[in-house]
Amino acid sequence: MTDTTQKHQATLEQAVQALHGRTFFAQYPENPSPDVYGAEADAQGRAAFTARRGQQFQELQQGEPQGWAGQEESPYEQAGLDIKYPFFAPETLVQNAQSAFDAWRKVKPADRAALLIESLEGMKQRFFEIAYATMHTTGQAFLMSFQASGPHAADRALEAIAAGYEEQTRFPEQTRWDKPMGKFTISLNKSWRPVPKGVALVIGCSTFPTWNTVPGMYASLVTGNPVIIKPHPKAVLPIAIVVAEVQKVLVANGLPAAICQLAVDADDHLITKALAENPAVKLIDYTGGTEFGNYIEGLQQQGKTVFTEKTGVNSVILDSCDDLDKVAQNLAFSVSLYSGQMCTAPQNFFIPAAGVKVGDTLVPFEEVTQKLAAAVQGLATNPKAAPHVLGAIQNPATHERVAQMADRGHRSVLAHGPVENPMFQNARTCSPALYEVDATQKEQFSQELFGPIMLAIKTKDTHESIRLAAELAREHGAISCAAYTTDAAIKEEIMDQMSLAGTAVSFNLTGGIYVNQNAAFSDFHVTGGNPAGNASFTNPEFVLKRFTWVGFREPAV
Amino acid sequence: MTDTTQKHQATLEQAVQALHGRTFFAQYPENPSPDVYGAEADAQGRAAFTARRGQQFQELQQGEPQGWAGQEESPYEQAGLDIKYPFFAPETLVQNAQSAFDAWRKVKPADRAALLIESLEGMKQRFFEIAYATMHTTGQAFLMSFQASGPHAADRALEAIAAGYEEQTRFPEQTRWDKPMGKFTISLNKSWRPVPKGVALVIGCSTFPTWNTVPGMYASLVTGNPVIIKPHPKAVLPIAIVVAEVQKVLVANGLPAAICQLAVDADDHLITKALAENPAVKLIDYTGGTEFGNYIEGLQQQGKTVFTEKTGVNSVILDSCDDLDKVAQNLAFSVSLYSGQMCTAPQNFFIPAAGVKVGDTLVPFEEVTQKLAAAVQGLATNPKAAPHVLGAIQNPATHERVAQMADRGHRSVLAHGPVENPMFQNARTCSPALYEVDATQKEQFSQELFGPIMLAIKTKDTHESIRLAAELAREHGAISCAAYTTDAAIKEEIMDQMSLAGTAVSFNLTGGIYVNQNAAFSDFHVTGGNPAGNASFTNPEFVLKRFTWVGFREPAV
Repeated sequence: MTDTTQKHQATLEQAVQALHGRTFFAQYPENPSPDVYGAEADAQGRAAFTARRGQQFQELQQGEPQGWAGQEESPYEQAGLDIKYPFFAPETLVQNAQSAFDAWRKVKPADRAALLIESLEGMKQRFFEIAYATMHTTGQAFLMSFQASGPHAADRALEAIAAGYEEQTRFPEQTRWDKPMGKFTISLNKSWRPVPKGVALVIGCSTFPTWNTVPGMYASLVTGNPVIIKPHPKAVLPIAIVVAEVQKVLVANGLPAAICQLAVDADDHLITKALAENPAVKLIDYTGGTEFGNYIEGLQQQGKTVFTEKTGVNSVILDSCDDLDKVAQNLAFSVSLYSGQMCTAPQNFFIPAAGVKVGDTLVPFEEVTQKLAAAVQGLATNPKAAPHVLGAIQNPATHERVAQMADRGHRSVLAHGPVENPMFQNARTCSPALYEVDATQKEQFSQELFGPIMLAIKTKDTHESIRLAAELAREHGAISCAAYTTDAAIKEEIMDQMSLAGTAVSFNLTGGIYVNQNAAFSDFHVTGGNPAGNASFTNPEFVLKRFTWVGFREPAV
Repeated sequence: MTDTTQKHQATLEQAVQALHGRTFFAQYPENPSPDVYGAEADAQGRAAFTARRGQQFQELQQGEPQGWAGQEESPYEQAGLDIKYPFFAPETLVQNAQSAFDAWRKVKPADRAALLIESLEGMKQRFFEIAYATMHTTGQAFLMSFQASGPHAADRALEAIAAGYEEQTRFPEQTRWDKPMGKFTISLNKSWRPVPKGVALVIGCSTFPTWNTVPGMYASLVTGNPVIIKPHPKAVLPIAIVVAEVQKVLVANGLPAAICQLAVDADDHLITKALAENPAVKLIDYTGGTEFGNYIEGLQQQGKTVFTEKTGVNSVILDSCDDLDKVAQNLAFSVSLYSGQMCTAPQNFFIPAAGVKVGDTLVPFEEVTQKLAAAVQGLATNPKAAPHVLGAIQNPATHERVAQMADRGHRSVLAHGPVENPMFQNARTCSPALYEVDATQKEQFSQELFGPIMLAIKTKDTHESIRLAAELAREHGAISCAAYTTDAAIKEEIMDQMSLAGTAVSFNLTGGIYVNQNAAFSDFHVTGGNPAGNASFTNPEFVLKRFTWVGFREPAV
């Protein structure tokens, strides 16, 4: 056992336990307070980020670049960051990964896990820098940038490390097999090896550049596969910093940096397909739109193992509750958080035509939608809260989609509008819009409308709400579902139907916990059981498919 | 907990332990001795089989048949069994399975496991009947028919039950999640359900009608999926008896028989594709040829989860040994066992041109092949042993293939010939043939030559032997590899290269243990890591992919 292995053994064991307890566990504190991270951490992180602008990113150790490329811009400033990253041709990256494979696969799973935890310790030192990098690439507000890209991502990475370590050590390295044959015994020495599949590719998205990338990245690494990290061209810096930290640990331990490489698109062409289609690439993790995700899933026909998180249509089922105002406030926050750009953000609000039961009274459909609209509006126009909740819109196309919805002839309950941000005058912002749709107009609510768009769908009754929510999840995918009911039978009907649709359900959330949030070590993120994605952070399948059990046997002397 | 659950709990727990210990474990005795199974068991089993000939198989409880079909014939008699099975149209079978789904998925995993173990107890009572059914459909000799289709299959089924039960209970049913937020705590009650994927189809093969079918069948059942068992039209009876036993237990416990249905081809058309392509079929297990297997794997594009065992090219690497005669005898037995019709039978014998080291001397290539030929010939012409080892050839096409090899211009070392069988004059038999091929003629040894065909391939040295064996496994698949070496460095080279090719290796087997044999609870059968198949009996992936983890949460009051 190496020193690093010893150093992180307790953390690894705790993490494995946490996976199975599924009670609260966090290795990395989510509070960006000076008490936790030190008085200077915020200022230093901001300064480090600022100093990178207009510069070449020089921290990677993966060889002499074949060029420099970068096209990030801040959604807060609507101006370029002008950071350039080393460019390598896809075949160079794959060759480098292949030559690093032998060194990495021969490191024992426990030692790999420890080296990777060491890299998360390095990442932790840079949570603030990563936070500002995330803010100015994704448009997330500061707190989400810090938490999602920093501690929450690191916890998800640790979760993948723990799951991968556990699965690789779940069968004995060796044993003796004695088969009684009556007058004699046949004795064999047997051994087993978890054999990594080969070069892995992780394709990142523009909205959660570390949170959605590190699970696949660390899962492939801990199981012995060299990885190539290909971020979205608009959100490179946050994950580039993580890759640099991994390379630092690898090199310090006498291992090739090419075990974990950063791949960036050239400014004039994208390289993802060339990487994904390379025959040496055996594993692909993908987060992003459905169309490209389906192309990636199609590569399974070429024998590649693929893990996807695509898009879904998330539902809210409103049946009954104790306090409708609290419900509206909770949902308004969920919709507003990062302006609806989370894969877990609710979109379709199924509300019975007769209304929602609150205690003994039925609150009519129109009053329910008005309450939702008022809560959204209240948040969006609160100057102390709005900028910190809504952040900015990452992609101009999202902004346009919200604007165009108004022209589609839906009945508007609440129009979208700009959100004032005193810190960034040019921030690309947009408050949520709410439209009313009838349950019969399924084509209007059966696709993801990415961004701050809510649809209030008038149904015959809650049974129809459930049927539609489950049907949409089965046919078009869903990553979250929020349901409000005080009726035990309805609750079981929702659990039963949504479970068959592979969709997790949060019931009756009010106060400071939201359907959007999925906690590492407790909430599986995406189930893999509907078209929103075939993978789940982090169930055993997420790590198992990255290696093969191979056995050996020989007569015992 | 039901009575049945209590009855089988200890067996289930032992089986789960055995999975992880991977030492010898067998629940069902493999010795067909009267001491074990009773004085009358053999005679009764034979009589039960004989009585079925020329009759309708009336034991199934899956509703009014839409017709009767059956086309089995005995390779020992080359005459029809004339047994007719109830025929149902594919859409009827799928509809019946769908209507049984709710009842089955709501049974708890522990209770499902117990009911399934109960069905194996029923199967055990009929091991001899199944043995004769297997003999007269597959051509296996009696002992293999008994062991492979009876106790060994039942152990593989129990293994799948244990693995499925363990995975479904690996995360808590419910827990409380308390997140400290400084001045307050957010508390959620969380629960998780393993949700079965839906209707499952298991497609059997003609040579191992129960052994290769029950793992997928029981794996799908224990995880809550209704299954449709579609045997090869030439080998229905052995698995029909098992299905009948499962239905008996289901009905006795108030559950629909349609949870486990038998599907037979019509006499004038095959129904496998109609079943496999039905959109309601979510899981498919397949054992058989590569071409149809590739078609089945292609159905993954339609969102189906697929488990395959196709064909491979199995290698023997001869480098060095202590006693070449013992090696030759062991390999001759492996090649002769069921006339090379096992998926684990060796085909390609890689031998260095300079010969095989035996102690301090090099035994020349020609002498090695002569020793192999002599050992094969000795066994095939031994009237006391040959019929009991070689059995009969299941498919006339296999018989023809062996005959045609002689015309292909290979250098023949040993010609094939008939094997005398005093019990069955008409038995379709064939002793193994041995041809010599040069390592440069890769096209001649890079495909499976199903049946008793051996190729002695002359290589430059053992490094080339290893390179070729690994290359063939990676490119064309392999299910087994036997290697003989007394050199530790060579051994590690073989382990390393064959592990990357996803192929288990048996080293230095002599005496009463053979490369063909894979023991439940210890040897993973097929790795899933090369083109010979994407699944493995029984690793966690084999059961995990049959259900989805879905979580629920709600504020704790």
